[in-house]
Amino acid sequence: MLLGAALTAFLSVSAQEQPVDYVNPFVGTTNYGTTNPGAVLPQGMMSATPFNVMGSDLNKYDKDKQWWSTPYDVTNKYLTGFSHVNLSGVGCPDMGSLLLMPTTGELNVNYRQYGSEYTDEEATPGYYKNKLSKYNIQCEMTATLHTSRARFTFPAGQSNILLNLGEGLTNESGASMRFVNDCEIEGSKLLGTFCYNPQAVFPIYFVMRIHKTPEKRGYWKKQRPMQGPEAEWDADAGKYKLYTNYGRVMSGDDIGAWFTFDTQANETLEVSIGVSFVSIENARLNLETEQPVGTTFDKLRADARAKWNDDLSRILVEGGTKEQKGVFYTALYHAMIHPNLLQDVNGQYPMMESDSILTTTHNRYTVFSLWDTYRNVHQLMTLVYPERQMDMIRTMMGMYQEHGWFPKWELYGRETLTMEGDPSIPVIVDSWMKGLRDFDINLAYEGMYKSATTPGKDNLMRPDIDEYIKRGYCPMESQYDNSVSHALEYYIADYSLSTLAKALGKKEDAKMFYDRSMGYKHYYCKEFGTLRPILQTGEFYSPFDPLQGANFEPSPGFHEGNSWNYTFYVPHDVKGLAKLMGGQKKFVDKLQMVFDKNYYDPANEPDIAYPYLFSYFKGEEWRTQKLVKELLAKHFTTQPNGLPGNEDTGTMSSWAIFSMMGFYPDCPGVPEYTFTLPTFDKVTIKLDPAYWGADKLVLKKEGGDGYIKEIRLGDKKSSSYRITHENLIKAGEITFVCE
Amino acid sequence: MLLGAALTAFLSVSAQEQPVDYVNPFVGTTNYGTTNPGAVLPQGMMSATPFNVMGSDLNKYDKDKQWWSTPYDVTNKYLTGFSHVNLSGVGCPDMGSLLLMPTTGELNVNYRQYGSEYTDEEATPGYYKNKLSKYNIQCEMTATLHTSRARFTFPAGQSNILLNLGEGLTNESGASMRFVNDCEIEGSKLLGTFCYNPQAVFPIYFVMRIHKTPEKRGYWKKQRPMQGPEAEWDADAGKYKLYTNYGRVMSGDDIGAWFTFDTQANETLEVSIGVSFVSIENARLNLETEQPVGTTFDKLRADARAKWNDDLSRILVEGGTKEQKGVFYTALYHAMIHPNLLQDVNGQYPMMESDSILTTTHNRYTVFSLWDTYRNVHQLMTLVYPERQMDMIRTMMGMYQEHGWFPKWELYGRETLTMEGDPSIPVIVDSWMKGLRDFDINLAYEGMYKSATTPGKDNLMRPDIDEYIKRGYCPMESQYDNSVSHALEYYIADYSLSTLAKALGKKEDAKMFYDRSMGYKHYYCKEFGTLRPILQTGEFYSPFDPLQGANFEPSPGFHEGNSWNYTFYVPHDVKGLAKLMGGQKKFVDKLQMVFDKNYYDPANEPDIAYPYLFSYFKGEEWRTQKLVKELLAKHFTTQPNGLPGNEDTGTMSSWAIFSMMGFYPDCPGVPEYTFTLPTFDKVTIKLDPAYWGADKLVLKKEGGDGYIKEIRLGDKKSSSYRITHENLIKAGEITFVCE
Repeated sequence: MLLGAALTAFLSVSAQEQPVDYVNPFVGTTNYGTTNPGAVLPQGMMSATPFNVMGSDLNKYDKDKQWWSTPYDVTNKYLTGFSHVNLSGVGCPDMGSLLLMPTTGELNVNYRQYGSEYTDEEATPGYYKNKLSKYNIQCEMTATLHTSRARFTFPAGQSNILLNLGEGLTNESGASMRFVNDCEIEGSKLLGTFCYNPQAVFPIYFVMRIHKTPEKRGYWKKQRPMQGPEAEWDADAGKYKLYTNYGRVMSGDDIGAWFTFDTQANETLEVSIGVSFVSIENARLNLETEQPVGTTFDKLRADARAKWNDDLSRILVEGGTKEQKGVFYTALYHAMIHPNLLQDVNGQYPMMESDSILTTTHNRYTVFSLWDTYRNVHQLMTLVYPERQMDMIRTMMGMYQEHGWFPKWELYGRETLTMEGDPSIPVIVDSWMKGLRDFDINLAYEGMYKSATTPGKDNLMRPDIDEYIKRGYCPMESQYDNSVSHALEYYIADYSLSTLAKALGKKEDAKMFYDRSMGYKHYYCKEFGTLRPILQTGEFYSPFDPLQGANFEPSPGFHEGNSWNYTFYVPHDVKGLAKLMGGQKKFVDKLQMVFDKNYYDPANEPDIAYPYLFSYFKGEEWRTQKLVKELLAKHFTTQPNGLPGNEDTGTMSSWAIFSMMGFYPDCPGVPEYTFTLPTFDKVTIKLDPAYWGADKLVLKKEGGDGYIKEIRLGDKKSSSYRITHENLIKAGEITFVCE
Repeated sequence: MLLGAALTAFLSVSAQEQPVDYVNPFVGTTNYGTTNPGAVLPQGMMSATPFNVMGSDLNKYDKDKQWWSTPYDVTNKYLTGFSHVNLSGVGCPDMGSLLLMPTTGELNVNYRQYGSEYTDEEATPGYYKNKLSKYNIQCEMTATLHTSRARFTFPAGQSNILLNLGEGLTNESGASMRFVNDCEIEGSKLLGTFCYNPQAVFPIYFVMRIHKTPEKRGYWKKQRPMQGPEAEWDADAGKYKLYTNYGRVMSGDDIGAWFTFDTQANETLEVSIGVSFVSIENARLNLETEQPVGTTFDKLRADARAKWNDDLSRILVEGGTKEQKGVFYTALYHAMIHPNLLQDVNGQYPMMESDSILTTTHNRYTVFSLWDTYRNVHQLMTLVYPERQMDMIRTMMGMYQEHGWFPKWELYGRETLTMEGDPSIPVIVDSWMKGLRDFDINLAYEGMYKSATTPGKDNLMRPDIDEYIKRGYCPMESQYDNSVSHALEYYIADYSLSTLAKALGKKEDAKMFYDRSMGYKHYYCKEFGTLRPILQTGEFYSPFDPLQGANFEPSPGFHEGNSWNYTFYVPHDVKGLAKLMGGQKKFVDKLQMVFDKNYYDPANEPDIAYPYLFSYFKGEEWRTQKLVKELLAKHFTTQPNGLPGNEDTGTMSSWAIFSMMGFYPDCPGVPEYTFTLPTFDKVTIKLDPAYWGADKLVLKKEGGDGYIKEIRLGDKKSSSYRITHENLIKAGEITFVCE
């Protein structure tokens, strides 16, 4: 209570403009940002999102006609409902099911026909609104951690509510449901196959309640086509059949439930949905706990807004433009979508890679896109939301205990094995090094050691580890493998592991893993001055073009990028790399060239820390400041296309957040930051004294609009443009004195 | 206990040949008889039946290529499993799902590929066996009232057990299941749309246990087809996908579960399935009650055989050929398949036309094909199995109380509205008149009165009642309506109702309904000497051909038949009809012509009592005897084509049973029989003294091989070839003295 009171006092801001007011949930909703404007809470399991990616040529982007990974694109026009539980900022299709849609007039359950264009879109944290043009229905959505509430305002006449379980962003199909009574449905739907991993499937359970008894209700199901005389007799063959008189269990690939009402003009109908990944009973418990009898839509909306404002207010910014504040708080908003809660209100959650159910006493998280988020999201969590990062670490520990492996790309209890590397290692080491140590580090080390040493045939994380250990690098296995990318990830993971081993007094391990982490040098090709794939023979791959692989085209040796996007990705040995390249000047010139020639890809992870690497070298720090400022201005706006590319569950936004605050964790696993020019005059980060022994960190900008000429830590001048986490916290107040 | 002991003593037969030994379950399994050789108990809910009607061109009859209403035809060759809970002797597809199939070798879940030819078929009551040619697996099936047991004998190597929930004889689709553990699945599947009634749907619930832990287990599901880049990425698109690592809820249109084993040569695996129409919990309770731990296949098989023998032994026949005994006991076997139990072992059952669950204290029956069975099946039940008929009446009363209507064609709690008329009325009246009165006859009368008087728009049983009441007949409503057939059914129902009204002292009602029942005279057309449809104008329909409608071709005014098949169907006023036709001689000549010219259809219900009508006229009784003997010999054999046509849930067989015993209930609702020449030297019907005050009825044949010259009731000579039910019982012993 004291902390809460302190927090409130501390975070007093102007009554006019609260942090939550600056958030624009439409940012990133096109240009493949893959965020969405749905209603969601920080780290909430539930999101209720407008779904406009199927059913009509009015939509430029159709989930069934191309690779498509988001339920919403702001440039699409045809809405077929609101999807429940969605992924924000990912590159593969999944989730986005339980499609709730209001319509009017004669019942029509074909989404190619019942969808509608819409106007009057509005979205704020925890709230979304639009108006369906075809039906003149106003739709509003809000959410709690595990539940959603819809409020539909209808015109007079027959109104309908549809719940479509046949469609969704997921490529999985199959659902089952039943009417509990006229106003309540319960059921389940299969989700999964994220990034086309066929076995990564899991069920979502739900309970839906409508707050008014319908005139009629029933199911629909797309019928199998029939041949010959059967087709003549079965009027529904191949069509959507309406079940008007049956309310027991209904299962199938393409099923739905419908409700019809006789509404007055401007009558509102509300619909509540609770979900769980454990059971229908838990979905109901979640619903009844978070929406007790009497709860109003407006209260839920206000609660959601307050919760967002509380969380966003952990960082208060002053100065800067409204646009910059919009970018900042929207980024912070996006950084708190995933990972999200997996457990239900009673603590139950699905065991990792198992059909069993377990109970947790801390928050159990899911949606770990670790190849992305190990770079900065967890560093942001660690500093600003350490209680969450601590539970994320505990979650990862739980996954190891349950499944035998730390996560790589975990989704609702499934290891999807998307992307490469061993990214849990730097995440855990980074947090532990910074002081988040309320977990069994020896057990953690055991798990890390396992994935770093188990032979490839039994190694889920590092299937190509055998050659990596033997040779110090991963040779090419096929034309378009990702061998260099794999090895680069292993180097950074092994570097983290070596620092942990050292800290734990395991000197031999520390040396072994350190030696491994230097293996990147094998890939350095003097001829091109870049990293270059190596054949099984030990020779470099030819013909080699370090530019091949731009724009997601296939690239020998590199994943989602080309050699230029990876060559500087040795964050644990920047100086060593520079030496390899011929010294500081050559390194700096080459890195500058990457930017000058536009080889830099701001929209994907491998090179996102590049701008900060200049600051490892005295006198070159201005380049970091110049580039970061330019990149922020160019790629981060409050427009729907205001993200450089795929948000990658907060990674793009975390880059912006750190960059705008004036420091960035450029080497995962190493508890250090590189300074850059802050965007705001003053940034106040509310720290949790239980973790950091201090209650705030203030970053101030003084002087002119030019580059940094001096950095003061408290009242001492900093001798470096890099700083350890410990010193950052200790500083209390950091002042950037600018030219 | 005393009764049981008496029964056993009474029913002692030769050790060599018991009644059960005469039954051949293959009778009726082709020639559209639509029976099947599956394992089933008398009135059992469960049947476990070889399923050979899909998946290969080896099968002449394919459920998906034509109208097809049985899971098995003896002339087909390609077996895709054993279906659980089937209909026997019906004309529309339904049920026949939960397809259990053993295979060997690499797992293949496509039924177009995993099916097999087979040899060594064998079937006895409660038992079926074959050998799968492709796999060298011996399959055996047996059943209890609510459960099945399979025993598969495998060769050495990989063996598989598949449960296919995607297919079945039913046209409905959609199922859901989950692994309870490695050896147990529970789930549900939607069934229904019998005779293409789209709303007559209901779920079946099941629990399946395999008596050995599999090496591996999982699901399959037919995947939706995909387009474009998605199809490239999803290797399973449009195919059967194997789920190898997921055991929670699985739902979809076309799903299944697989188990693999490493079997030794001749190793047997057993599989038990329990079903319920109430819940999964009840399916499990049924399974655990009827197959307690330790129950062996052989015990279940022996119990099933003993139960059948007990029930079949209620009638003992002596004399006659082995073939005739085979026909008789097979007919009696077929007469005890439907109606069958609906309730679970705890008494729960699905309420009629409702999603609710109720509990019964008596046996609750289902599968009432009443347009067929009201003619003779219930009369057979009443006499020989009165405790079952009593519960069938109670069931019908329950349906009225629950749904507001007596059944017409009820299937697992759904009124399918198949065929026409108001057939519950004669069934209930017939039983009550004969003395089965342990139900509320006033409530029954209320229900009958309701369907006989409610205006058409609200009348589920008699939608065209308005004109029927106003005019005394149903005028044609469209070219191929069944108006005359409708009216003929209403006449016989109203006649029954008039006799009941009279018995209840409701004189005015009695007269009203009697008058209605005479309305058939409107249809009599002197020009053709037949019944003839009447137009809305009141004129006869023209051009008229009384032969139009043979072989199920569309027929103006008549359903599944032509005018000749219906003209004599006024069983409650045979003499009146004769008068209309110009007297006894003209009636007899015309009826004889129907047989002589082959207008008589022995394979459908409207005219099946025709042979008995001669015996209403003195001196013409020999025609009945001659025709019945000829028809029995021609149409009823122990061959697979040994039924004249569709068994119609026991109706064809009941015709044979009565006819072979020497008497037939030719007028439903009227407690009388017409005698004919018995097939056997002696028939002993075990009567239940609690119902009939006597413990047996013996029918003996004496004299030569010619026609009956005298009938003795006890020691008195009968003056008639017809006899009331009361006098039949009283007689104790009836002797047919033949020429």
